[in-house]
Order: sequence, then C-alpha cells, then structure tokens
Amino acid sequence: MIETDDITESVVSSIAQMKEISTSFRKQNLTTGFVPTMGCLHEGHLTLVRNSLQTCDRTVVSIFVNPTQFGPNEDLDTYPRELKNDIEKLEALGVDAIFFPDIKEMYPAGHNTTVQVQGITQYLCGKSRPELFKGVTTVVLKLFNIVRPDHAFFGEKDWQQLAVIEAMVQDLNLDVVINRVAIVREPDGLALSSRNKYLSPDERQTALSLSRSLQEAQSEIRRGTTSAEIIIRSMRNLFLDQKGVQVDYIFICDPESFKEKEQIRGRTLIALAVKVGPSRLIDNCIVEEF
Amino acid sequence: MIETDDITESVVSSIAQMKEISTSFRKQNLTTGFVPTMGCLHEGHLTLVRNSLQTCDRTVVSIFVNPTQFGPNEDLDTYPRELKNDIEKLEALGVDAIFFPDIKEMYPAGHNTTVQVQGITQYLCGKSRPELFKGVTTVVLKLFNIVRPDHAFFGEKDWQQLAVIEAMVQDLNLDVVINRVAIVREPDGLALSSRNKYLSPDERQTALSLSRSLQEAQSEIRRGTTSAEIIIRSMRNLFLDQKGVQVDYIFICDPESFKEKEQIRGRTLIALAVKVGPSRLIDNCIVEEF
Repeated sequence: MIETDDITESVVSSIAQMKEISTSFRKQNLTTGFVPTMGCLHEGHLTLVRNSLQTCDRTVVSIFVNPTQFGPNEDLDTYPRELKNDIEKLEALGVDAIFFPDIKEMYPAGHNTTVQVQGITQYLCGKSRPELFKGVTTVVLKLFNIVRPDHAFFGEKDWQQLAVIEAMVQDLNLDVVINRVAIVREPDGLALSSRNKYLSPDERQTALSLSRSLQEAQSEIRRGTTSAEIIIRSMRNLFLDQKGVQVDYIFICDPESFKEKEQIRGRTLIALAVKVGPSRLIDNCIVEEF
Repeated sequence: MIETDDITESVVSSIAQMKEISTSFRKQNLTTGFVPTMGCLHEGHLTLVRNSLQTCDRTVVSIFVNPTQFGPNEDLDTYPRELKNDIEKLEALGVDAIFFPDIKEMYPAGHNTTVQVQGITQYLCGKSRPELFKGVTTVVLKLFNIVRPDHAFFGEKDWQQLAVIEAMVQDLNLDVVINRVAIVREPDGLALSSRNKYLSPDERQTALSLSRSLQEAQSEIRRGTTSAEIIIRSMRNLFLDQKGVQVDYIFICDPESFKEKEQIRGRTLIALAVKVGPSRLIDNCIVEEF
C-alpha cells in the first residue's frame, strides 16, 4: 500500500493536473521529455531519465503498473512497488513532474477503447503474452495524450515493445520522437529488470545464463557460424539441466520486421525469454554483419 | 478520377504540410475547428462547417473516403466523389484549409495500427457493419493527430458514430471537444446523406418512409403507447410491400449505452437502417419523456 506521506510536491496523480502542467510547458515553448515506467526504478530507468534531462527542457516520469498489459496468470499483484524510493531517486535527478495516477483515474468505469498494432506483435513476447502489447499501446497512447511529450524514452531491453511503439507513433501520426536507449547491465552482464527483485541468490546466478548465451552466440557468429538453428541449439544447451528454468523462446530475426531468419545475414536480432524461478526474464542483442 | 485542375491553393494533400498549418494556427493562439468528411458535401456537412466557422478562429475540413470503414461487399468503389464541387462549396464558406490526402498518404505500406471502441459498437450499425467503427475510430484519431483541432463537429444522423467518437476521446484522454450538430433534412423530411445520390426518383420517394416512420412513432408515443415492440411493429409496417426495400434494423434504446428498451421511459433513441434500392440509409430521433 502507498502511504500518503510518500507523496511529495512533484507527484501528480490527476490527469487534469498533469495536462495543466504539460500545457504550461508547451505555452512557455519548453520541450518535454517523457519516461513511462511501472516504477521500482533501477539504473536502466534512471538512464532513460538522464537521457531525457539532457535532451529536453522538462522531464516527466510516469509510474503506473498498468493492469491491462498483464495476462490473467501473470504477476500483476506481486509486481514490485517501491514508490517512496522511486520518488527519492527521481527527485534527486531533478525531474520536473512524476505522474502517478491510480487505476480508476486511468481506467474509469466504462473505459472501452484499445489501440492495437498488428503484424509484429504476433512474434516473441506477443506470442507468449497475447494481452501484453495491446495493453502497452493503449496505456502509452493515453500517457502521450496526457503528457504531450516532444520526446519519449524507452529501453532496448524491451526491443519488441520499442518497435511496437514506433509503429503506433508512425501509424497514428503522433508527433513524439521515440528515443531508443541501450540496455543497462549489472557488471556481470545481467540486464537490469524490476523482475530481478524476485530472484533468490541462486536464481540470480542462473539468470546470468541469458546474457552469457547472447555473448556465446556472438562469439560463435564471429567465428563464422551462420546457421540460426545451430546458434539457437548452442544457446539452448546453456539452459539444459538448470533447475527451475524454462526457456519461453530463443528467436533470431530481422530487428524491424521480426521475420525469423535461418541464416545470420545483415543486421540481426537475437532475443530470448526465459523463466527463472518466479521471474520471466528477457534479453537481446543486435548482431551487425561481420 | 480527380483532375489536377480541381486542386486549388486551400487544398492540402500531404500530412506534413497539414501538420505545419495546424501548428502555425496553434502558435498564433488561434483555435481550430475540424469537420471530417468523406466528400460529396451536402447541406448537412455545410451546417457542420458553419458551426465550426462560428465557434473557432480557423476551420479545417478533411475529404477522405476512408477504405477501412467499408466492408468487402459495401459501396467503397461507387461512393460518390465530387471534389471540384466540394472545394467550391468550402471555399465559398471561407474554410481555411481542405485536407485531401490520398490513400497511400493515410495508409502507407505496413500500416498496422487500429483503434477500437468496444461495448456500444456491438449494437445497431456496428452489428450490421462489423468493420465500420474500427475504421472510423482509427481514421478519426489519425485525422485528429494531424489537424490537432480544439473542436470537431459531427452530425447526429450518425448518432452511434458520435457516441463511439465521444467514447474514444474520453478513453484516450484527447483534448478535442466533440460538437453534436442536429440532423439536416430536406423539406419533405428525408435526412441528408451522400448516399441519397444513388436513389432513383421512385426510390427517393420510398426513402421518405424512414423519416415518416420516426414521425409516426413519435405521434404514437405522444398518444400514450409505451411498448417498444408495438412502436417497432408499426414502423416496420410502413416498409411492408415496398419494392426493393429491406429493413436492416429498427431499434429502440438508451441514447448513451445503446441498451435496448422494452418500454419508452426517459430519454430514448429510435434508430433505423433500411436498404432502399442501392442505398443503405439511416435515420434516428430522440424521444424525451412525455
């Protein structure tokens, strides 16, 4: 539960007030950068925020655990919430507003509109989590309409999400510039994720196999392997015999169209999703032509 | 086919140029009114335009026969197009810009995003024409994002369309004010529609039964009938034995939720759709409590 004491001046919970703030930025000819998050902020999020602070006159961060992007058996209820910490981190960086609406503010009774990108959402995470991207595009469009940013910042860890949002922005003729920010990793390679919090020390160790499998794939490709099937088999081997580990997908494809590739030729995305204990983790890398 | 000669200065066919114009209106603190149309303008459209001219500093009218709102067996190919006439009418009224994009400009290859309002779209026209409202909300949102109006104007003849657009505006947190404009009728009662052009003189006569059936329903209600079933039966009787006439629906419901009513109590919508010869025509009226 959120304590009222956690809420400080920079936190805005009403849509009307957030719109007033963003309108006032626009009227002063100040550019607005926007970082949408589900809270529980880590260095990956903070890197997005720093990018926004550098690029734009004003920066707005939203914290909203969006229920419509979780499936019925997913982790909506247990998704980590750390509002007080989040606010402290964001205020320390100097963000101008933190938009923290409750569910009723974003989805009042009778809310019945969805935004959907077809095509690229049928692969990867969209295949495993059919509700995910419809929920993401709907809430991101709502947030864009409320915050009216000139720039928005998303991390490349969610590579497919970025592509889906870029498609929505283009198809719906939105004026926001989408900025891609590289994956932030722990020193040992683990990609930062709020869901890393679920991991026990042992599971944390096991989770390293995601980034390691990507590193090995890159080495193998550098050594001349071009068959996607062989690469995927080597990657999959790393997860064999690991307790409590379940590979959802390992996929090699075009980074824009997400069409599967049989041969590593041209710019290629290698992406994987693996359940480690209670956490479904994702990671990816881009292989440029060697 | 559109002759290049038809295109005058006020006609804008590129999205980028239209955005520049609407941005310049905003920068001058001028309010923008917007009337989206599929062209073949009649007095109904022109009333919307006059409302916009009275309400706003600048008025933009779009002409775009939107393919995504037509079903596979509907009249996309034969839908009447009269660009030269349309431009003359709009320029005579003094609109500031006519947005006339082609299909590739609005739906370039790879366009894959749709906006959908659930719930109220399952009734009436949404039931008979499943593609209709998804196509309407998608194109209207695109147009709103391109024109960025403060006000938009829609006719009450398409009562359900109005409700669907209002739901979208509310759910997606858009800032445009939706203005409802009353149905404009011929002196004999026929609601104006671009699809009236398809009618032969005989069919034109037959089409009068739509507005007449609504008038008779209102008289019957004034005389004390409260059963929706009885009203619908009387209305339906007017269409019996008429050659080339096919009633799609006659529906009595709540004007906001579109839930069917058995009894005429409170504010009530009576709506009908009837195929007369080649034209699917719609009409409606609101009955206030007597």
